[in-house]
Amino acid sequence: MGMYCFGIDVGGTTVKCGLFTTDGTLVEKWEIPTRTENEGSSILPDVAQTIKQKIEEMGLDMANIDGVGIGIPGPVNEKGEVPVAVNLHWSFKAVASELAALTGLPAKAGNDANVAALGEAWKGAAAGSRSVLMLTLGTGVGGGVIVDGKIVSGAHGSAGEVGHAHVNREETIACNCGNFGCLEQYCSATGIARLARERVKDYAGETVLKQFYEDGTLDAKAVFDAYKDEDPAAIEIVEKAADILGNAVAVFCAVLDPETIVIGGGVSRAGKVLTDIIQKAYVKYAFTPCKTTPIVIASLGNNAGIYGAARMVLND
Amino acid sequence: MGMYCFGIDVGGTTVKCGLFTTDGTLVEKWEIPTRTENEGSSILPDVAQTIKQKIEEMGLDMANIDGVGIGIPGPVNEKGEVPVAVNLHWSFKAVASELAALTGLPAKAGNDANVAALGEAWKGAAAGSRSVLMLTLGTGVGGGVIVDGKIVSGAHGSAGEVGHAHVNREETIACNCGNFGCLEQYCSATGIARLARERVKDYAGETVLKQFYEDGTLDAKAVFDAYKDEDPAAIEIVEKAADILGNAVAVFCAVLDPETIVIGGGVSRAGKVLTDIIQKAYVKYAFTPCKTTPIVIASLGNNAGIYGAARMVLND
Repeated sequence: MGMYCFGIDVGGTTVKCGLFTTDGTLVEKWEIPTRTENEGSSILPDVAQTIKQKIEEMGLDMANIDGVGIGIPGPVNEKGEVPVAVNLHWSFKAVASELAALTGLPAKAGNDANVAALGEAWKGAAAGSRSVLMLTLGTGVGGGVIVDGKIVSGAHGSAGEVGHAHVNREETIACNCGNFGCLEQYCSATGIARLARERVKDYAGETVLKQFYEDGTLDAKAVFDAYKDEDPAAIEIVEKAADILGNAVAVFCAVLDPETIVIGGGVSRAGKVLTDIIQKAYVKYAFTPCKTTPIVIASLGNNAGIYGAARMVLND
Repeated sequence: MGMYCFGIDVGGTTVKCGLFTTDGTLVEKWEIPTRTENEGSSILPDVAQTIKQKIEEMGLDMANIDGVGIGIPGPVNEKGEVPVAVNLHWSFKAVASELAALTGLPAKAGNDANVAALGEAWKGAAAGSRSVLMLTLGTGVGGGVIVDGKIVSGAHGSAGEVGHAHVNREETIACNCGNFGCLEQYCSATGIARLARERVKDYAGETVLKQFYEDGTLDAKAVFDAYKDEDPAAIEIVEKAADILGNAVAVFCAVLDPETIVIGGGVSRAGKVLTDIIQKAYVKYAFTPCKTTPIVIASLGNNAGIYGAARMVLND
């Protein structure tokens, strides 16, 4: 094993880069812009160049570098190939092999949500757990599955796509994916805002959320702020979303039985009130041996991706 | 790698035993009784003895034997320890290490449903698939999860306990596990019989199932036989169970995205009509990239356990 590795997290506007020691210490962190023009053909060369610059700047010996891991916003198969990544303007790209050729270093690629889960399992909220289920509650609901310390990619790169677990047969509005009744329609920031609008619209009692509704600013943050102030409408909305989410997590755990469940994404900024209310619902629905599985808030924030990417290139 | 390995499948009344070549050919298959008296203290010594006899009888060289794998009807952790196995009258038992000590061979232990899934992934209906979700529809609903060619045991030995996925908030009758609304309350042989009784009880039209209901012999086999004859009540019952099951499998696949889904257990004797109707429901609820995942009937029958047990002791 070498002494260093690189972790790269490619987003639609910036590429986050990290140089790590192989014990998981973040030595340096920087960003470069994501150049999506010309079908994103500059993205991997730009990544390779910034890595080479860092190696030179730090005076590192190539023999001491284990490799470079990279997280991509799109499905990634087990060979590190991406069939399509809309936000990067990519069609098929053999990311891992191209990046290895460009850098002269061993390279691995993974889906960004899966890679973030691996980061949390390595040095974040689930550090020490060999198996982790992570849910990322943001604009949508993403996720990642770690089994035996490794990312589960899935046969179609769709493992951990928990936001598209079908949880409601009665839904009449389509999810972005085309199905009706996906988890992310209720438990993403967007989904919680929608549940809130539906509830507040004709709410008979007093609630601070009415003003937000009328101003058109009723979002998940407003709901959780009101929830912390014990607003009755906010309590109803949060309990409904948490009940749907807790039930879904219980079902996922009947399949996977992970050591730790991690909740990340923008909605997770609500903090412990969020995990408390999810745990309450989870315990109601979970299979008995799994009822004690801890549900924790992600701790690496935006750095989870570079940590997980770096971890990918290390052996056990 | 040696040339031989043993696969053992411990049931409540008999222990199935198999001698395999390491390429997966079943050389010999036999059974011994399961002696559950004295807290099942004879079970592992009996297994060790029958293995030693077989080695002597066949004139095998210990150096040519990779080891012995054993499937247990109970939770098994990653060290091959069993906290409790009710049907064997066991409390805690370090199965893998005891069996290794008794036989002088490397030994591994796994939960019987997980081990059967590994058997199907090795030489059965999912042969060639590195990731498999198996559901066993019998008296209850069990299951197993294979990722990257290996059993996923779970933090509490409960991975693959898909029968206790919570699928119905409205349920008022308790599952054996104590929860309300588990998958096995609808999709096991028992669950299908219950759905049938509820539907046939006050069914207004003509159905052959009425006679079974009145005779007290309305079971899952009667329902599927009538379904194949296009009996209208049977069609309703089977479609309802398949819809619940297809939805649940779609949710499991949003987490795992396996290459192949295998349906085993007594109910699977209904054959292709069963997978056809499950697939129809599955496709409706599955995340788009997973809609094409094949759903197949298990092919190893009662031998799945010995195949999977043998596979456990082989390296990739």
